[in-house]
Amino acid sequence: MVHRLREVLLLFSFLAILPKATGVEAYSRGGVIQESAAYCLSWRLAVEANNVRAWRTVPSQCLRYVETYMLGGQYDRDLDLIVDQILSYVNEIVPSSDGMDAWILDVDDTCISNVFYYRGKRYGCDPYDPAGFRAWALKGGCPAIPAVLGLFDYLVQSGFKVFLVTGRDKEALGQVTIDNLHIQGFIGYERIILRTAEFIGQSAVAYKSEIRRQLEKEGYRIWGNVGDQWSDLQGECLGNRTFKLPNPMYFVP
Amino acid sequence: MVHRLREVLLLFSFLAILPKATGVEAYSRGGVIQESAAYCLSWRLAVEANNVRAWRTVPSQCLRYVETYMLGGQYDRDLDLIVDQILSYVNEIVPSSDGMDAWILDVDDTCISNVFYYRGKRYGCDPYDPAGFRAWALKGGCPAIPAVLGLFDYLVQSGFKVFLVTGRDKEALGQVTIDNLHIQGFIGYERIILRTAEFIGQSAVAYKSEIRRQLEKEGYRIWGNVGDQWSDLQGECLGNRTFKLPNPMYFVP
Repeated sequence: MVHRLREVLLLFSFLAILPKATGVEAYSRGGVIQESAAYCLSWRLAVEANNVRAWRTVPSQCLRYVETYMLGGQYDRDLDLIVDQILSYVNEIVPSSDGMDAWILDVDDTCISNVFYYRGKRYGCDPYDPAGFRAWALKGGCPAIPAVLGLFDYLVQSGFKVFLVTGRDKEALGQVTIDNLHIQGFIGYERIILRTAEFIGQSAVAYKSEIRRQLEKEGYRIWGNVGDQWSDLQGECLGNRTFKLPNPMYFVP
Repeated sequence: MVHRLREVLLLFSFLAILPKATGVEAYSRGGVIQESAAYCLSWRLAVEANNVRAWRTVPSQCLRYVETYMLGGQYDRDLDLIVDQILSYVNEIVPSSDGMDAWILDVDDTCISNVFYYRGKRYGCDPYDPAGFRAWALKGGCPAIPAVLGLFDYLVQSGFKVFLVTGRDKEALGQVTIDNLHIQGFIGYERIILRTAEFIGQSAVAYKSEIRRQLEKEGYRIWGNVGDQWSDLQGECLGNRTFKLPNPMYFVP
């Protein structure tokens, strides 16, 4: 019931910003010029297609748009469609019996969600707050992203070795992250790889490329690589296919 | 006035498919269950983020969605935002005096539009029709895409050498393509490169990679590479930055 009410409220807030999306300037019932949902849709698309890069904050006029996107159902639908694509691809692969068929999954906003943290950061309209994020992560309360948990289970059951590769600091956040993932149902992965001292200060592209290179050196065949940041999916040893999950809240270089 | 009327009609057709986009299943005033605009938005996003690949046709339930997207203003807005991003990037580059600073632009649905052809192909819900497309291209009537023409002019005036690189067959379509571009205002480019006999049958990725390799061999520095297909932007010698323009109507492998 609460869920339904939330959907209805979101429907109204969404309808209030919709007419602009049609190409017609319009006024709301209250007489206020509509917010630029059409602009925010263009911005979100450009982020996902990697045309907008190195952005520091969500454009302030897109606060309500991003909130509605994340909580109103479209984010979940986008994930469902991408996971369907991944599963179609997975089902074309015949895993070998040597146990070296691997997938790589990012952690934050790939396996588990930070949307409730970002709600307090105006969905990314506020600049990145390292101390605030660390305090949130230390609580270990990130919920699973259901579509990705389903994918994870399917990969494990299909005989793939799943590696969780995250830029989170191992010393400060290692145990809490492992516990958080476990309690949310991510059980059966081969290894979780967190950022150790030698990689501190490196870009995500450099750090994750090096991790993937080491895995390939160990003999793993990386069939797929899934992340919410382009920096998860660029650099070296990318894997046979990459999949970009949506994230309109922050950019990791 | 006609333009305004078209906008209003599109507004109504858009509103008719909107409620689904809000996460609430709803009925139109006529009592018919809403079409899946939310699904089609997810699909379009996944195409642009290169998560959906090698697709042959637009999902048939997305015919009206793609029509509204292409003609109702959002496609133009998406282009405007991307071109703004490109211009910001261009303005950070200081061209050298040696005349070797280059940009690469694709032609079809980058410089000039095929949307009126695809209108007759149910906006890509019908499968690719090589003979039909050739007959359309031979008319030489593709209109310029205004945002990209503006970008093109800016690049030329800024001292960049602009190369138009297209998979169109040189023998059959060379002259008509050159004339089409000229009449639409694409004047001042360094060279147009069409597909010659040696490249027939090659994938766009292989063909365009080889062309870019040759340009780099000639000494050109490719600062940017703009296309509506991921196959324009993958492979070798990609350039310093790539920009993916939207195209939900067809996929070129």
